[in-house]
Amino acid sequence: MQLLKDKILNEGKVLPGNILKVDGFLNQQLDIRLLNEIGKEFAFLFKDLGVNKILTVESSGIALACVASQNMGNVPVVFGKKHKTLKRGEDFYAAKIFSFTHNREYEVTINKEFISKDDVILIVDDFLANGEAVNGLMDIIKQADAKLVGVGIAVEKGFQGGGDKLREQGLRVESLAIVENMDNGKITFR
Amino acid sequence: MQLLKDKILNEGKVLPGNILKVDGFLNQQLDIRLLNEIGKEFAFLFKDLGVNKILTVESSGIALACVASQNMGNVPVVFGKKHKTLKRGEDFYAAKIFSFTHNREYEVTINKEFISKDDVILIVDDFLANGEAVNGLMDIIKQADAKLVGVGIAVEKGFQGGGDKLREQGLRVESLAIVENMDNGKITFR
Repeated sequence: MQLLKDKILNEGKVLPGNILKVDGFLNQQLDIRLLNEIGKEFAFLFKDLGVNKILTVESSGIALACVASQNMGNVPVVFGKKHKTLKRGEDFYAAKIFSFTHNREYEVTINKEFISKDDVILIVDDFLANGEAVNGLMDIIKQADAKLVGVGIAVEKGFQGGGDKLREQGLRVESLAIVENMDNGKITFR
Repeated sequence: MQLLKDKILNEGKVLPGNILKVDGFLNQQLDIRLLNEIGKEFAFLFKDLGVNKILTVESSGIALACVASQNMGNVPVVFGKKHKTLKRGEDFYAAKIFSFTHNREYEVTINKEFISKDDVILIVDDFLANGEAVNGLMDIIKQADAKLVGVGIAVEKGFQGGGDKLREQGLRVESLAIVENMDNGKITFR
């Protein structure tokens, strides 16, 4: 998606440790015009798949999931809650996620009421690097015996390989911008 | 807003400790149709005030802030990040917030880049109880020397008094549903 790529080139910042900061339009500050276009693009890419629920993880994924839903018949959005410590209970599904950005493990939970075996799910998230967050949500979808039909990502860090590993499993992963390289602060797309 | 009140009466759950659970449509699962209407209502209530930025706090406020923006010319949304521990740095504004729900203090931060003295700000959030989150954002707005013109809330717990304290200061606070009482699990609105 050219609009997003231009935005990354113009306003994204490459920080040490392979960190791509896009908090001026996608993370802490949200460019709603851009988001509206991202929502339309996700709807186009995943049309005719019968999606009846969009799953994401707090916090930045929420905005993207909402705009995608608005363009896909206003299907419900459910977001996983992050916990730094293990949370135990019978009324929610839980999965462990390792965050490379923060170099620690955390847990994501979703109330069992909000995901069921009748659900046809699209996962939406802002970033995909090693694929840990998507793997955690996939784990929960499996526990709920629901059906996953695709993964829509705004920015994939292609060089970290998480997206390709998911594709190798036969999963449909659509990323609107895939950063292939950002050595020496120069961003190139796949 | 009748649609929201009906939803609270039909699907909200009153839990011990004065907790009102609305996570089936406003917190963990988001009813996008309802959100779209909430966005229109906020836009109607705060029109003609020259709002050029919407401020909220992660996570649940993000969805509401986005739909409000879509109905107010797609102005940027900025969300405060929550931290359990004090975070020190010169590149962000910080304020302490005491959460009665979780009975602990946390800190909210906003990157200094994303709020300036030229901003005319509307605060949007899902819940207002004691008003601590709004007070924290107001503190940050003051630090940035920006202008606050109103506060839009989905559900106010009127009996906790936070909303009225803000109104007494002359602040325009518009809550789409004000729960006045929920003793014995029976919800009544102001």
